[in-house]
Amino acid sequence: MNLKEEELSSQEIFRGNIVDLDVHTIELPNGQTATREVVAHRPFAAVIAINEQKEMLLVEQWREPVKQLTLEIPAGIIDPTDASPLDAMKRELNEEGGYRADYWEEICQFYTSPGFTNELGHIFYCDTLTKLEEKRSLDEDEFLNAKWYSLEELKGLMAEGKILDGKTVYAITVWENVLLAGAKETHNG
Amino acid sequence: MNLKEEELSSQEIFRGNIVDLDVHTIELPNGQTATREVVAHRPFAAVIAINEQKEMLLVEQWREPVKQLTLEIPAGIIDPTDASPLDAMKRELNEEGGYRADYWEEICQFYTSPGFTNELGHIFYCDTLTKLEEKRSLDEDEFLNAKWYSLEELKGLMAEGKILDGKTVYAITVWENVLLAGAKETHNG
Repeated sequence: MNLKEEELSSQEIFRGNIVDLDVHTIELPNGQTATREVVAHRPFAAVIAINEQKEMLLVEQWREPVKQLTLEIPAGIIDPTDASPLDAMKRELNEEGGYRADYWEEICQFYTSPGFTNELGHIFYCDTLTKLEEKRSLDEDEFLNAKWYSLEELKGLMAEGKILDGKTVYAITVWENVLLAGAKETHNG
Repeated sequence: MNLKEEELSSQEIFRGNIVDLDVHTIELPNGQTATREVVAHRPFAAVIAINEQKEMLLVEQWREPVKQLTLEIPAGIIDPTDASPLDAMKRELNEEGGYRADYWEEICQFYTSPGFTNELGHIFYCDTLTKLEEKRSLDEDEFLNAKWYSLEELKGLMAEGKILDGKTVYAITVWENVLLAGAKETHNG
């Protein structure tokens, strides 16, 4: 079955700092028309950052859409001035955690929810971290606490339902079951 | 550090079929104000469905926000008429795949991208599937192909970058490294 949908027209609804919203009118495979609400969001980079004590770095911050504090792996929107997703990630690890890492690998990429948004995440792994004397400033409307968590602590937080963020659930699952399990070879693994 | 942000006011931008958009003006922890663009989206249920041949069910469909066909685990928005996320999932598995399953467990819940949306996903696992003679109809603007994939096929698709959807990357990772690896006990082993 041909599944492709053709965009017939697009109505601009909103242009924001973080998201744009458009409503596309599309032709369905059966020739009828329908609308699709499309949220445009720039891609982000996020990182599974592991220190020498085998702890993962998480940042605590207020998330207005869910009206609560969340614990998430360090992440940030890729700026047009970033040379690459990895460069963006190195900048964010500096800003959010005050760290530099010497070993990096890319784990995967995915769309967070392709039914309504084009937001794409690049997930990295890093270790061999150094605390920086002078860290870069956060964005002026960004407030967060960065802390290290052992696998046992993370499993406890997961069991208590305190890890609410999809990329962080994924990160902990990969760290415990793939990276630590040695199914994936790393330079020090 | 206190990280809580207080909503001072909210401006309604859009009320749609799938998403609503509002811009909240909030008070930052330092007393200054900022805006947050908030996309409201109903929660969804999705399922890691495994058949007797140890294959996973994926649905292929056009995703307008990313302008391509994707392969995703069966999923659907939870309707107000669904008694529970699990009930919604059973309905979707019928509609999208034409299957009923006898064994179910909930794997986890997560927000897909809490920085800009409250969309919450409930991820289930099921097996012991029966093909239904009469499957429920899809929504009238929904077109998809449902197919079964072995783990080897899924790993090939992942390596080729053909699994683009976050919940599906997570589902394959969990199936391969947790469920199949036996780290998590299931009724059948």
